[in-house]
Formats: sequence, C-alpha cells, structure tokens
Amino acid sequence: MKKQQNILIIGAGLCGSLLALRLGQRGYNVSLYEMRPDIRTANISAGRSINLALSDRGIKAMKLAGIEDKVRELCIPMNGRMLHDIEGKMVMAPYSGREHEYINSISRGLLNGLLLNEAEKHDNVKIHFNKKCKSVDFENTTALFKDYKSNTEFVEDADVIIATDGAGSALRKSYYLGKKFLFSFSQEWLSHGYKELSFLPTENGGFKTYKNALHIWGRDSFMLIALPNLDGSFTVTLFLSYEDGEYNFGNLTTEEKVIEFFQKYFKDALELMPNLIEDFFTNPTSPLGTVKCSPWHYKGNTLLMGDAAHAIVPFYGQGMNASFEDVTVFDKVLDEGHEDWETIFKTYEKHRKRDTDAIADLAIDNFHEMKGHVNNAIFREKRNLEMALEKNFPDNYSSKYSLVTFNEDISYHEAMLKGRAQDKAILNMLADKELDLNDDLKTNLEKVKAATQEILDEDRVAKDFKH
Amino acid sequence: MKKQQNILIIGAGLCGSLLALRLGQRGYNVSLYEMRPDIRTANISAGRSINLALSDRGIKAMKLAGIEDKVRELCIPMNGRMLHDIEGKMVMAPYSGREHEYINSISRGLLNGLLLNEAEKHDNVKIHFNKKCKSVDFENTTALFKDYKSNTEFVEDADVIIATDGAGSALRKSYYLGKKFLFSFSQEWLSHGYKELSFLPTENGGFKTYKNALHIWGRDSFMLIALPNLDGSFTVTLFLSYEDGEYNFGNLTTEEKVIEFFQKYFKDALELMPNLIEDFFTNPTSPLGTVKCSPWHYKGNTLLMGDAAHAIVPFYGQGMNASFEDVTVFDKVLDEGHEDWETIFKTYEKHRKRDTDAIADLAIDNFHEMKGHVNNAIFREKRNLEMALEKNFPDNYSSKYSLVTFNEDISYHEAMLKGRAQDKAILNMLADKELDLNDDLKTNLEKVKAATQEILDEDRVAKDFKH
Repeated sequence: MKKQQNILIIGAGLCGSLLALRLGQRGYNVSLYEMRPDIRTANISAGRSINLALSDRGIKAMKLAGIEDKVRELCIPMNGRMLHDIEGKMVMAPYSGREHEYINSISRGLLNGLLLNEAEKHDNVKIHFNKKCKSVDFENTTALFKDYKSNTEFVEDADVIIATDGAGSALRKSYYLGKKFLFSFSQEWLSHGYKELSFLPTENGGFKTYKNALHIWGRDSFMLIALPNLDGSFTVTLFLSYEDGEYNFGNLTTEEKVIEFFQKYFKDALELMPNLIEDFFTNPTSPLGTVKCSPWHYKGNTLLMGDAAHAIVPFYGQGMNASFEDVTVFDKVLDEGHEDWETIFKTYEKHRKRDTDAIADLAIDNFHEMKGHVNNAIFREKRNLEMALEKNFPDNYSSKYSLVTFNEDISYHEAMLKGRAQDKAILNMLADKELDLNDDLKTNLEKVKAATQEILDEDRVAKDFKH
Repeated sequence: MKKQQNILIIGAGLCGSLLALRLGQRGYNVSLYEMRPDIRTANISAGRSINLALSDRGIKAMKLAGIEDKVRELCIPMNGRMLHDIEGKMVMAPYSGREHEYINSISRGLLNGLLLNEAEKHDNVKIHFNKKCKSVDFENTTALFKDYKSNTEFVEDADVIIATDGAGSALRKSYYLGKKFLFSFSQEWLSHGYKELSFLPTENGGFKTYKNALHIWGRDSFMLIALPNLDGSFTVTLFLSYEDGEYNFGNLTTEEKVIEFFQKYFKDALELMPNLIEDFFTNPTSPLGTVKCSPWHYKGNTLLMGDAAHAIVPFYGQGMNASFEDVTVFDKVLDEGHEDWETIFKTYEKHRKRDTDAIADLAIDNFHEMKGHVNNAIFREKRNLEMALEKNFPDNYSSKYSLVTFNEDISYHEAMLKGRAQDKAILNMLADKELDLNDDLKTNLEKVKAATQEILDEDRVAKDFKH
C-alpha cells in the first residue's frame, strides 16, 4: 500500500498522539485534530494534574516509538499498595515478588505533551487544536469539524479516518445513530462516581507521605486512593456511591458532613488535606463507565481505537496501557503487509477485541478487590503466598496482577483466564485448608499449578459446549 | 395506593396485552396504545402466522389471569426435538424424562387476539390502535403519539406509563437520548440472521411431518427449525450467517443457489417445500439481537417491561415466557402493598433484573447447542443420562433445560447457575471416563449431584472475591 496516504486522526489525547507519532514514523501523511487547546501551553496548575499508572504494556509502546528514556524521566515508581487501615496504620503490599516489577505514576499532561512534541518533529504530521469533530460520514470518509476559534464548521476528507476521541467518540456515535450496519454497543455505569482531591507538597517541596506507593484507604463500599506527582503533591481520588450507604455523593453537601466523613473513615488522610473542602466543592463528581462495541471499523474507511473503542474503569491502572497497546498491535498488523485498509482493520479487530473485553472485565473485578478484599484475611494469605512464589520461583509463577501488568507479551485474555483460574484455585484450597502456608513452598507451587490446570481443563470442556 | 390511577401502557403485543388485562382485573384505569392495526381484524394469511413455544412460566401467568383453559385450546404440544441428520434420518430427543413436561407451539396472532379480547371485557381498559408512540417525557409522565389514521400528533398524560413496546422501545430510546441519568444499555447482534419459511399443510389439511415435535436440522454453523401450526402447516425458520461460510444470506441471491443449498443440507425438508423459492425471496431476513439495560424505571413515573427492557434471542423459546413472567412478578410486587410507584418499580427491578440477564445469556448458549451439539456424541450421552435420571428420579433431578423450561418456581438465575454446573459436571465426568453409563443409575445420580455441588461451592468461593 502506498505510504503517501492521508490519515486523519480525531483526538490528540494519549492514544491519538502516540498513533500520530508512530504513523508519522512509518511515513504516512497524518492530520491530527483535537477539540481542546494545546495541552502544552494551556494553563494547568501544578499539583492538580491528573496522574496515571504506566506499566509494561504502555512502556512496550514507548519503546516501539523510541521514546522510552524520555518517558522514564517523568515516572515515579510505585512498588506496591500502601494500605491505610481505619486506625491510620499503614502496611505495604508489594505488587510483585520480583523487585524489577513495579508500576509508575506519571502526569497525563506531561506525557501527552511529550508525545505531541515527538509527533510534531515529523514534517508529515500536522496537528490542529480547538477543532471539535461533530460527526463522521463513514461511507464517504469525511469528518465534520467545528472550529472553536472562528466558530465555523468545515469538512475534511482523508483516505482513512481513525477516531481516538475517547469514551464520547463522535465516530462511534455516528456508527450508532447511522444504523447502516449491525452495530453492537454497550455502556455500563457503576453505581459509584469519583472526585479528585489532592495532598499538596510540603513547604520545601517534599512528599507528605510515602512516595513510592499507590496509597489505598479501602473501606469495603468506598475507597480513597493517592498517587504521587513529581512536584511532591499527590493526586487523591475518592470513589463513592452516588446514592447508597450512610455517606454518598448525594448527601455530602455541607462542609461539616464532608469533614465528618473523612474524620470517621480517612483520619490520617484528612490530616494531610487542609485543602479538602476547597477541592471537594470545586472539583466535579464524575461517573465511571465501561464502553464496548463491535465492529470497530466500517469497511476500510474508518476505525475506532483507544477509549473510543473500549473505555474501561480505572481500577486496574490499564486504561492508558491498553490504548498504547492498541498502537503496538496495530503497528504489528501494518508490518504484515496487507493489501488494503479493510483487511488491516479487520485483522486488527480480530486480534484485539477479545483482549480489550478482558481488561474491561478485569478492571471491574479489581474495583471490588481494591475497596474491600485487600483488608480480608484470606485474600492477604493468597497475596502473601503469591509474593513468596514470585520471589522464590521468579520464572515459574506470576499472579493475575503480574500477568496483566508486567507480562506485556501475554495477551489480556490469556492473563484473565490463567489469572482467574489461579485465584480460584488458591482461594478454594485456602478455604478448604488444602494449602498449608508453613509447608515447603515448592510443594505449594505444585499444588497451585495442578489445581489451576484442572480448573482450566474443566472450564475448557464445559466451554466447548457453549461456543 | 388508589386504584383509580390512570396507567398508560405503550404497546399491545403479548406482554402489553397481558399487563393491561391483569391491571384491568386489579381495578386500575388502563389505556393501551398500539402502533399497528388490530391484530384480530388485520389480514394475516393462514399458514404464515409466526408461532412461539409456550412453556410453564408463560402458563403460570395465564393461570394468574384466569385464561389457562382458553390458551390450552390454541396449543400444540411438542414433546421433544426431532433431529434431522444430513441423510434425512430422524431421531426424537425428548425435552424431559417426565412425560408431563413438554412445550407448546402457539400462534402469536391467536394468542395476542385472545389477550386483547379478555382485556377489553373490562370497562376500565381502553385499547387504541394505529397510534405510534414517538417519545416519552419521563419527567412529566407524558407520551407523544402519532395517529396513523389522521396523521396527527397528540400528547397523553397518565399517573404512570409502562412501556411494553418491544426491542425498539420508544421509552428506552428516550431514556438513552435524554441523558438525564446514568443509563446502562447494551445491544448485541449475532452474526447470524433469520428468515421465515413454511411447510404448507397436506391437501386434506394434515401435517406433512411429525406433528408433536420441534424439528431441528442442525448443521453446526447454521440450522433450520420447524414448529407446527393448528392448520397443519409448519412455520420453518432458517438461521444462517449474514457473511461467513460457503452459504450465507449475503450470497444466497439466486434461485439456483438456494435450491443447491437446501438440496445439500436440508434434503428431506426441501421435499416438503415446493413453496421454498417464493417464501425465500418474499420474506425478509431479520437480525437477532440481545438488549439489556438498567435502570428500567425513572422515579415512579415510567417503567420498561418485556422486550423493551430485555430483548433476547429466540433459541431457548423463552422470550414470550420471560415477558409473561414479568407480569407475574410485577403482580406479586403489587400484592406487597408498597406505598408508591417508585418503590414498586425499584422492588420489581431488583427482583427481576438478574433473571432476565440470565435468560438472555442462556438463550445465546442454546443457539450453539441447537445448531451443533445436538449432533455431538458426548452431548447425546449427557442428554441420554439426564433423560434416564429424570425418568427414574422424577423428584430428584432436573436438567438445565427442565429447570429453565418446566420449573416456573425456580428463578432463571438459579436455573442458570445450577444448570450450568450440572452440565459442566456431567461433561467433564464423561470426558474423563468417570461416569459409566452402564453403572447403576442411582450411583450416577449421586456422582452428578456431588460434582455439581463441588462446582457450585468452588464458584461461590471465587465469586465472593469478585463482588
């Protein structure tokens, strides 16, 4: 296929910027359109920048684009979950028994800016800000934009259009409303919403609590988390039901009630948040949703990628990583040298869809794990055993969390099947006292492996009759 | 709550008509609006009426409305699946080992007409035809209608509005497009579509093939089925992929190719279908979809029921039965004497949602079972064992099919969990040669029960950590 083809990308967020960079590197003519102003020059106050957890799947994509070193400079390693109990006691629960396996807190704004800078270095990549896509004519491969500066509308055409415009994608909306083909689609909302808060840096720019961890205050039906930023601040997020329970977003309407709630459940965090009330009543409460759909493409004309195709809840720290992995997988399909875009898009979706469905489901499971199970005795026994297995048999055992987060060459779907079977095996053996944690570790490894394999085999026999 | 309340029901199909009848019996003022002409007087040619499978959950609702006897007169019992292999050989596979358990072929039009007749006997029930609901203002509890006769639009208000207007529900669309609350929604299409065909009666009005069965020509990736009608005809349905495989709806475009396809795969059926070509090219090809959503209600103003809330694929023969069961469950909630409609709607959805999700998933599983597994040796061994267990231990064993179809006092969700665990237990024990079909039946019953219980226990331990 000719490289001089014109590719229009809608949305210059993390996925769109990386895609523009990579397609630019491959020699395509890329036009990247973004509804917001340029994130590199827009006024974003320090300490309020949202951060994300970058892990091995995302880093693999950074390597592909040759920018791993620059990205590493923006990262703060988080080696585990720092669990805060209701008394204020802290326990560090590592993410892995292998020391080199950790996740990284990174600023969305700084990373996005870096990707835009790198993309712009290519003469064949043009970036346009303040231009919002309103709809896509997927039969004629044109997109309708509104220019927020001139307040006018215009139409752009291209050889292919790729929409990386997030959970509210204009292309996906056009697929849905167009009714030109059978478009499967789902949006599922959690009963919980979230609100961002913050710990500001100390007066001399230091961190008010332990820097290299993802802090969790899990309270069964709600939770608070905190991730560190380079400037010494932490971005803190409260996940809470909209309507249910004694305290919820619906009834936290006065300063007194908010303080009372934090005093009761997050006492040690409250001490670090003199700015709580201002944050709480200034920042919006936002919903948490999962979007799945299929097909992602229309013929060889248009394609959905990133959150536009598969928005997920944030509890596995994999939303950005999954979107970056989309680019890795798409790049690999381009390497296969298919004749036309329709085959490329079809092949890409066929490889990828099962994996993005898997991480969507895993992310919902992890919500329950984070807010509740980390405090549960049998869950902690499982994690302790897994940490010991990973440490002592580094080449022979990976927990579900490790499979998802640190094993970028295993697909999400495979990680889900194997990880869930392992969890089921260990939890059942612990519940039935078939595992003795004082036993020889090697014996326990073999028991876990055998029970996991039996679960996988039995599921396979049953599943063969479902599909 | 006062009985003089005005209830507006949108859609006079099977669910809406039964609901109008039942709410009429309970003394409410009911206005029932339908977009189509009156099905009792509209010209529907005999032999082409669509038929459905009425089973115990549906019959329970008929009993509640006091019309079981009248409905029974419209029924043709089907005692099992008549499996037609590619050579034309037939084998009867019973639905149950208990003789009194069978399903019933019934005409949609005749049953709907009966329900309308019964509803109309109540002075407090008014039915309006040719009036299509375009949208619902769920905050003000009003509905906008178009009158197809006068070609004018008008607005109706009511104390509550219940939408039973099917898979394309106007109320559900208003919920989705209104964006006034977090509305979870999914539509999933199968890659297969369906087309209705027919066996006409013999010249003297008899049945051309065995009357008391649901006939299946399962061919792994596609299938044909036939259900008997009172007039001696059968309604025949072809389920086939739109795009994939050697033959599909996309490429069956000539008479020659259609005949070739039927000659090759459905030879014995073709002999009964001199009218095949006319049917094939006259009747539409329609898609097969599943719709789920939540919440079903908005405050105490509006409620979705039947297919409007949960459209499912037809492969378990449970679409109509599930909608009728909605009315049974709703009626029971009304009996509880709640103070206001919001509590009634919330309670109803809380009871019901898990069950309609379950039957939606079971119906998709059964698609694979019908087109393929019925031909598979191990599947047949499982069914033979289950038939023997049901026959010899009628009070002590029910297959998944029996739990879903003949056990109206067990919820769909419970039937799914138990039925899937039983299937998994039996299939794995057969695959591992842990069940000997020549063994004492009592021994095998106990083995199946023990293995099923173990699966349920292990799933429960693992699931406690997912939610």
